Amino acid sequence: MDSREEALKLHKDNHGKISILSKVEVKDSKDLSLAYTPGVAEPCKEIHKNPDMIYDYTNKGNFVAVVTDGSAVLGLGDIGAMAGMPVMEGKAVLFKEFGGIDAFPICIGTKDVDKIVETVINISPTFGGINLEDISAPRCFEIEERLKKALKIPVFHDDQHGTAVVVFAGLINALKIVNKNLKSIKAVINGAGAAGIAIAKLLINAGIGDVILCDRKGIIYEGRQGTDSSKISIAKVTNKGKLKGTLRDALIGADVFIGVSAPNVVTKDMVKAMNDDAIVFALANPVPEIYPDEAKEGGARVIGTGRSDFPNQINNVLAFPGIFRGALEVRATEINEEMKIQAAYAIASLVSDEELREDYIIPKAFDKRVAKTVAANVAKAAMDTKVANLNIDLVELEKKLNKIL
Amino acid sequence: MDSREEALKLHKDNHGKISILSKVEVKDSKDLSLAYTPGVAEPCKEIHKNPDMIYDYTNKGNFVAVVTDGSAVLGLGDIGAMAGMPVMEGKAVLFKEFGGIDAFPICIGTKDVDKIVETVINISPTFGGINLEDISAPRCFEIEERLKKALKIPVFHDDQHGTAVVVFAGLINALKIVNKNLKSIKAVINGAGAAGIAIAKLLINAGIGDVILCDRKGIIYEGRQGTDSSKISIAKVTNKGKLKGTLRDALIGADVFIGVSAPNVVTKDMVKAMNDDAIVFALANPVPEIYPDEAKEGGARVIGTGRSDFPNQINNVLAFPGIFRGALEVRATEINEEMKIQAAYAIASLVSDEELREDYIIPKAFDKRVAKTVAANVAKAAMDTKVANLNIDLVELEKKLNKIL
Repeated sequence: MDSREEALKLHKDNHGKISILSKVEVKDSKDLSLAYTPGVAEPCKEIHKNPDMIYDYTNKGNFVAVVTDGSAVLGLGDIGAMAGMPVMEGKAVLFKEFGGIDAFPICIGTKDVDKIVETVINISPTFGGINLEDISAPRCFEIEERLKKALKIPVFHDDQHGTAVVVFAGLINALKIVNKNLKSIKAVINGAGAAGIAIAKLLINAGIGDVILCDRKGIIYEGRQGTDSSKISIAKVTNKGKLKGTLRDALIGADVFIGVSAPNVVTKDMVKAMNDDAIVFALANPVPEIYPDEAKEGGARVIGTGRSDFPNQINNVLAFPGIFRGALEVRATEINEEMKIQAAYAIASLVSDEELREDYIIPKAFDKRVAKTVAANVAKAAMDTKVANLNIDLVELEKKLNKIL
Repeated sequence: MDSREEALKLHKDNHGKISILSKVEVKDSKDLSLAYTPGVAEPCKEIHKNPDMIYDYTNKGNFVAVVTDGSAVLGLGDIGAMAGMPVMEGKAVLFKEFGGIDAFPICIGTKDVDKIVETVINISPTFGGINLEDISAPRCFEIEERLKKALKIPVFHDDQHGTAVVVFAGLINALKIVNKNLKSIKAVINGAGAAGIAIAKLLINAGIGDVILCDRKGIIYEGRQGTDSSKISIAKVTNKGKLKGTLRDALIGADVFIGVSAPNVVTKDMVKAMNDDAIVFALANPVPEIYPDEAKEGGARVIGTGRSDFPNQINNVLAFPGIFRGALEVRATEINEEMKIQAAYAIASLVSDEELREDYIIPKAFDKRVAKTVAANVAKAAMDTKVANLNIDLVELEKKLNKIL
């Protein structure tokens, strides 16, 4: 059986990947009278008196909606809400496995931005957080922004921010190897969709020297014609030298290449034109912008991809479970820049100076320490930046995380 | 600890009553590559080619949304979406325990009918069925009707139809005891909300002689002033004699009283005015329209309530798990009248002629045979009435139900 057949069999044998689990027993009339009528009226009345009690008496505080309209599913594109369902169930599996979070797929059968926003707002009473997934750019930016404004629970588009956090985590450690400083480097990002723009924003907020963003038409600069609104605004804060031209032009003298674009768009020669000790994160999947061996021949010193079969896999699973776990623990009202930056530093911190090598800059997906460390850092950052509804003791939190994760 | 404290403790200790369960393991890169990228792309592509494959490759076919706006929660009234959450989680527990169904609470933070309808339509790709719960009348009628028209999956307002099915099941057996025929009896229903109107409709469709419906203003008749649209239409098919007056007037000579209204609105004298061998289902909770001992003194022969501490509990849990199980098994596009009537006959059939007594007309909530028998009858009725997408073998179905329930 090849891997395609194996994947289909796994999904078919189980009729998907998640189900609902009762946390209470209902084996007799007594059980029924406590979990359902008449006993259930008691927590209802308590929540009616004080809405915050919903976090005590229901699972809301651990429910995350995995919301998609199926418009940008994996590399498959706009395959629709129904066809996106296996990915959303898969995401729910990862939320549970890595973050102890009860995530539920909400596949929305419309691509209308207003309707998606209203639908998510309407169903939000059930959830402690909203994870947006596989929604195409630039719609994803507007949807996220409007939901963040409307809701008092975290709204997080993982394709944007999860990717950005893990890229930044990798970069923190890669820079240690090449002995360069974030403030003085120039990074080139190819691909100006959800991930590319979010990476650029996070690197800028973290204090990078300069970022140049490229799309299919080449370098994005202020005033370029025929550019959508998300690119117009990112142009204002990137590309300080107002460079024009192609990706090839952008890479000349660059310290870092980050590809979230398409297979084979970078050549060995283009890497050669980069600064010494170049860092190359070629994240297109399954075929990267440039294969590691070629990048190496071009002179790259640290190389990462999106694949588990090469060293330095930049994998979102390192970020989102811990980020949500931390945000939920303190009932954060949002996931802000500081929380994301601290998540990245948490991930990077798990590779010690002794372990750090060109081919080991980032922990493995199955490193059990990751989600706990990220969650603790994110919870602290939420409290520090005053977006936490609960102020909790970090030692107690650590104990709890060690127990549940 | 009293029962109030016990109920609160149960909810608080568990942080609610349901969580998400992974059906697949993700312990290493191989697992991850099958359940998530890149393997998950395969079922996505299959569903994109043929949307029906979503039932093979995901849990959609076993997901039921438990949808509320919190406008008519238990006897508590309009306490809102958040305060309704414990009931919706409780319902999900019952769906799982009694029907093996993965139900998920969708608490909608608006009472606008258009918005509720649109929200449920928008999130429907995730679900195999929609259970409406605790939505106030008459809005619940319009919401259900519009959703039924818009969706090709079952939409079922349990407060209406679940109650109606179990009442009818009880009535079938009660009539055997008093040796009366459905066609020749007159029933009086007090309470013209969701349950009352649904019971009236089902009894009429099942062939009852006549039904008189009463509300706070007394008997509902065609042409009564100040009556909402749901009551105007039910007036056309009930109360054949065009009787006017109070509940007391309605009960004179009636064979059956069904109360879905308020505590203590029926007296011993009112029962005395009923026909011989009266059947009294006093379902108001926790205090019934008349207590069983008083009804008995008034001459009632068969008495049911909504409470587990009296004989003959009319409990929705006898209906909805099996009805949905049966509908989901054949991928019914709706739950029609015939399916509901067959569900009632299935429930009634589980009390054998030998067992049948005045104080045992309906199986107990925890009778393991109920959901299976209901599911099989409902699946057959769906196939017979051509609303099933799958035609399945009933012997095979029975084997499966015996395994999973």
